Amino acid sequence: MIHAAAKVQAAGGVRTLAFDASAPLQLANGEMLAPLTIAFETYGALNAERSNAVLVCHALTTDQFVASPNPVTGRPAWWPRIVGPGRPIDTNRFFVICANVLGGSMGTTGPASLARDGQAYSLRFPPITIADMVRAQSMLVEALGIQSLFLVIGAGMGGMQALHWASAYPKRVFACATIATAARQSAQNIALSELGRQAVMADPDWRGGGYLAHGVRPAKGLTVARMATQVASHSEASVRARLSDAHKRERFSFDAGYSTGSNTSFVERFDANSYLYLSRAMDGFDLAGDFGGRLANAFQGGSTRHCVFAFSSDWRFPPAESRAVARALIAAGADAGFVEIESDNGHDAYLGEEPQFEAALTGFVDSCATARELSLHGGA
Amino acid sequence: MIHAAAKVQAAGGVRTLAFDASAPLQLANGEMLAPLTIAFETYGALNAERSNAVLVCHALTTDQFVASPNPVTGRPAWWPRIVGPGRPIDTNRFFVICANVLGGSMGTTGPASLARDGQAYSLRFPPITIADMVRAQSMLVEALGIQSLFLVIGAGMGGMQALHWASAYPKRVFACATIATAARQSAQNIALSELGRQAVMADPDWRGGGYLAHGVRPAKGLTVARMATQVASHSEASVRARLSDAHKRERFSFDAGYSTGSNTSFVERFDANSYLYLSRAMDGFDLAGDFGGRLANAFQGGSTRHCVFAFSSDWRFPPAESRAVARALIAAGADAGFVEIESDNGHDAYLGEEPQFEAALTGFVDSCATARELSLHGGA
Repeated sequence: MIHAAAKVQAAGGVRTLAFDASAPLQLANGEMLAPLTIAFETYGALNAERSNAVLVCHALTTDQFVASPNPVTGRPAWWPRIVGPGRPIDTNRFFVICANVLGGSMGTTGPASLARDGQAYSLRFPPITIADMVRAQSMLVEALGIQSLFLVIGAGMGGMQALHWASAYPKRVFACATIATAARQSAQNIALSELGRQAVMADPDWRGGGYLAHGVRPAKGLTVARMATQVASHSEASVRARLSDAHKRERFSFDAGYSTGSNTSFVERFDANSYLYLSRAMDGFDLAGDFGGRLANAFQGGSTRHCVFAFSSDWRFPPAESRAVARALIAAGADAGFVEIESDNGHDAYLGEEPQFEAALTGFVDSCATARELSLHGGA
Repeated sequence: MIHAAAKVQAAGGVRTLAFDASAPLQLANGEMLAPLTIAFETYGALNAERSNAVLVCHALTTDQFVASPNPVTGRPAWWPRIVGPGRPIDTNRFFVICANVLGGSMGTTGPASLARDGQAYSLRFPPITIADMVRAQSMLVEALGIQSLFLVIGAGMGGMQALHWASAYPKRVFACATIATAARQSAQNIALSELGRQAVMADPDWRGGGYLAHGVRPAKGLTVARMATQVASHSEASVRARLSDAHKRERFSFDAGYSTGSNTSFVERFDANSYLYLSRAMDGFDLAGDFGGRLANAFQGGSTRHCVFAFSSDWRFPPAESRAVARALIAAGADAGFVEIESDNGHDAYLGEEPQFEAALTGFVDSCATARELSLHGGA
């Protein structure tokens, strides 16, 4: 099944597929990236028809451990309510693939990986795009012997990848679920991304991007950058509770900020240069821009079934932007639903307990599965 | 006219009123702050009835130089379209006062001021609130011999002060114009404020708050904090133009960020600890919370005429929050208008060219002036 140029390896609980120099990744900027390693996890079993594969595209700050603990960080699975036995994406029924994104730092080639000279790429890593991330995933999916994915699903940056999948490879995506995302990064998100990047680069331990060679990490800058990604992720109530705690303290201190949450473990597990590259890839995402400014053109002629999910209190990726995606899909003649969930939990609502979201996603997945079986076995 | 304990001084073009220890400022936290210096500018002349005074409350990152160049920084007046001869707040007609806010760094007592021991307060400066800022302004206004202000006006943090003025001193405020503000800091604004504070404190040149004693400034951290205040201040078009420039550059650099704008001069003129104190004062602002959770109670029994302005693209202080203020004012029986201006220019729209805003503000000011004359001279 595995491509001749690719080799499955595992080290420290991180499973990877390594492509040698004969199978470079063609980047949008014209460069070739080789060798390429893609770290990935799978759950469940591929059926005989190879028709039950689900690709989960992770968001900016997560990784491939969607449904199992991360052996490197010890953190639990990040999406246990959605992916697992008996969950909306039922691993008893589907073969679920989740790959660390290109440019990431959990095993896939990124700025912390070693270049051919044995030193970390750091800022020598080429600029990448959402399309490049999808192309790398496509190489993985092909290497696993899968011609057509039953479902591609993702939120935030993962939703951008899912939209690009449906646009670039319509025949290879039977269904597509995009969650809390947009077809183009908004100005406010670009401003917040740049703020996070500036915070990383302002940290003297960033060392002009070369911190790995100096055995240091820009932990404080990355903590601030992490806050920029989380700024829409908290409910009004939780921010007010932390505010109240903070106001009980008399003075200011760096460590006790009321929005830091679990940032310490974040900065230990996440490469700061990865943040620079991935956030800039998001900033450059503009699917309509790639198709003459009309988003519907990005989906012309496809038969992928879509469902677009948004959460009412998510102002990083507000429902209006998801509605625009759904409208463009309908305009392109696609079968596309739009679900807006009332929630106080901001952008990260999709990670938590949202029964309406789970019910709608389950209904969408089940109906697509029925349609997929019909299309495979000659029904209707 | 000037209070016995107060003395007008001027140094380097900055005019101040210094209260000695016999006139301390009572802070909301119970402490007394003395001595207190308030730096202020005035424009136009106080009329014989002392009925034409306008107090402009400045926002987080501006100062008292509302209608004249700042002699310290060389920057031009920050609100020339609104305050000046023939402008909506016509200095040929009104006596305009603008004071550097308590906790600021343009001459009013703040964390960079010297404490009694001859050293800068730095983090020994007491925590302050919006109410404390207003109480300090009230001391200035009284010292200038003004019993009742014709108009209090402000945007952002200045709007919070204007609302507090109308709530705390209803008989001393004839009219109140609040612009791009809210009766309570939103969770997202709190998160962005905290992000800015963390960025300042993460800068090694912050030196635990004691940078002044070391002859350094946390310029990089304050640059990031400034970005956090500006994140809603740019139009979609301007962010995209800068994004495009940034993507033309191959690599990442701190200085060339596409959202920094004029931040270099900002970090030179603005004290980083001031940012910590002022932003936290904003975070703690909750006018309804001070009145049993019902905002209308904050304005009960007042006769102040209000106009509440909001800009459609301002997501730091979205129109919905201004509408809530206007609704509460009406519920309190106040004469209150609400004006939403369609603009692509975000939170900073009020600083730029917005003809509809200027026309509405002019109408409000003129009608209030007519009413004020009538009430003073026995008409209607």
